[in-house]
Amino acid sequence: MNISVLGCGRWGTFLAWYANKIGHNVMLWGRETSRNFIGLKDTRRNDYLSLPEDLELTSSLENAVSFTEIIIISISAQELRSFANRLSSLNEIQGKTFILCMKGLESTSGKRLSHVFGEEVGKNINTAVWVGPGHVQDFVNNIPNCMVIGSDNIEVTKKIVQELNSDLIRFYYGQDLIGNEIGAAAKNVMGLAAGMLDGLNYSSLKGSLMARGTREISRLVRAMGGNDVTVYGLSHLGDFEATLFSEHSHNRKFGQALVEGIEFGKLAEGVATIKALRKLSIQYDVQLPICNALFEIIFENKNADETLKNLFLRPVKFEF
Amino acid sequence: MNISVLGCGRWGTFLAWYANKIGHNVMLWGRETSRNFIGLKDTRRNDYLSLPEDLELTSSLENAVSFTEIIIISISAQELRSFANRLSSLNEIQGKTFILCMKGLESTSGKRLSHVFGEEVGKNINTAVWVGPGHVQDFVNNIPNCMVIGSDNIEVTKKIVQELNSDLIRFYYGQDLIGNEIGAAAKNVMGLAAGMLDGLNYSSLKGSLMARGTREISRLVRAMGGNDVTVYGLSHLGDFEATLFSEHSHNRKFGQALVEGIEFGKLAEGVATIKALRKLSIQYDVQLPICNALFEIIFENKNADETLKNLFLRPVKFEF
Repeated sequence: MNISVLGCGRWGTFLAWYANKIGHNVMLWGRETSRNFIGLKDTRRNDYLSLPEDLELTSSLENAVSFTEIIIISISAQELRSFANRLSSLNEIQGKTFILCMKGLESTSGKRLSHVFGEEVGKNINTAVWVGPGHVQDFVNNIPNCMVIGSDNIEVTKKIVQELNSDLIRFYYGQDLIGNEIGAAAKNVMGLAAGMLDGLNYSSLKGSLMARGTREISRLVRAMGGNDVTVYGLSHLGDFEATLFSEHSHNRKFGQALVEGIEFGKLAEGVATIKALRKLSIQYDVQLPICNALFEIIFENKNADETLKNLFLRPVKFEF
Repeated sequence: MNISVLGCGRWGTFLAWYANKIGHNVMLWGRETSRNFIGLKDTRRNDYLSLPEDLELTSSLENAVSFTEIIIISISAQELRSFANRLSSLNEIQGKTFILCMKGLESTSGKRLSHVFGEEVGKNINTAVWVGPGHVQDFVNNIPNCMVIGSDNIEVTKKIVQELNSDLIRFYYGQDLIGNEIGAAAKNVMGLAAGMLDGLNYSSLKGSLMARGTREISRLVRAMGGNDVTVYGLSHLGDFEATLFSEHSHNRKFGQALVEGIEFGKLAEGVATIKALRKLSIQYDVQLPICNALFEIIFENKNADETLKNLFLRPVKFEF
């Protein structure tokens, strides 16, 4: 079938490449002035992959939306609201299915991305999320992984999975949008913490980080009305290999660079997510000690070594 | 206070070193004919550390038991029954507290080690377990970690923690002996699986392994009468950094060597645990797909690549 991908960063470009690889007709949209888009137009490749000839590039949002019933969005999470607002002015979006393939929360409100999207584009569309582990670098080398697609409508979920499943990416049906979205966003925060532990030579405390990090996010998800076991699935815990232990993980590297005092070019998405989680922590009255410690380190210049040692090596007590 | 450690392998010798370091009078027992014991007698050191002069070595079990009220045991899990039987002949054990610092299950019966120990030594003693993450190599380099001590008697647990807690090892009170013991043993099995995935160039599937591995062990613990969240704490998930991702992990290296067809000198404890878990799977009627796949690979010579791919990349379905 026809599939459009909106957003031509590392991940969006991969998604277009993947949809094409498994047999779909694909249109990839980017802003005409974006460096990534200009690069792809010029060379048909980026640092990770080459685009096949039959994959169409466009900078017309109308074209990309008209092209298909299934539209994948992969842009910066903090830009989703304004982008969705722009989409809402297009009549062609009515009745279509949008898949948000991004991991984040709106930092100013703490809102989940499907919520932000729904607020802007209205109700007459289907919205799904695509989350879970996997690095572009691995997928293009044919290393498979398992991911999750979820929505509030199991029939929509099943249809998308049917179209996108392959030997390279095995999809599971997500059944808890709250848990999947919060979990996927929060794993970036745990990635930041893992990088800090690595940078401070406390990598061995990543075990405690995994046990305690999953628990605090699980409590938040339950308070928000989600299922408290969802974070122990692919969207959060299942993404820890790719985030807490991988050389490719942007968030892990950002955390490490920060404690090592090294300038790190790109801003990691987890940083915005920390702000969002702090809002949710207050709103739902759930303590999030790890998120809180990272907030203090990043936004209040607290000493990372002391703060993390206090967090992980505080006096004895019950585990749960 | 006085503390005895029975067993002078890598871990037992470290425990003696640690108890001495935090201010106790320590006696370390080993079999007179054991290579480790002879080496320590001769050189006062092993590959990982040097014993301080005031740490006493003995090959008399009577001496080691008479020396103190708190006795730590760290020997091969499969030898615990015969060792406990030998201990049971000593009158001095009555009323004392034994801490089992080992991760395994009796392979012939599936029984937990505290259960095996209790069957042999009777009821008039206290038994606790000491589990959780940490490598000798890290601890001797002053890299801290969090661990768990648990028993059926919270007063016993608290007393032990009070004596053994330090800045190097922070203890939590374990409240679920079933979950802590099954979790600690089963993490070695997940370590074997992680090594196989590494060896097959599927390291990225360790994310799925973490999500699905914790879930199947959680189901077993619940069926056995334990708390199904315990495995998400330090004794199982919290030990994954040290087991699934560490260069030092014996079980991970064993799994990797196995799929690479390389001879691996020592037998990993996880191999015996697979047999035990298979028994428990039948006894409690709980499916353990990962444990089962490893059993087929190790004991029935099934192809590791095919078996693990079938396991992790099988057709789409619900995640939970």
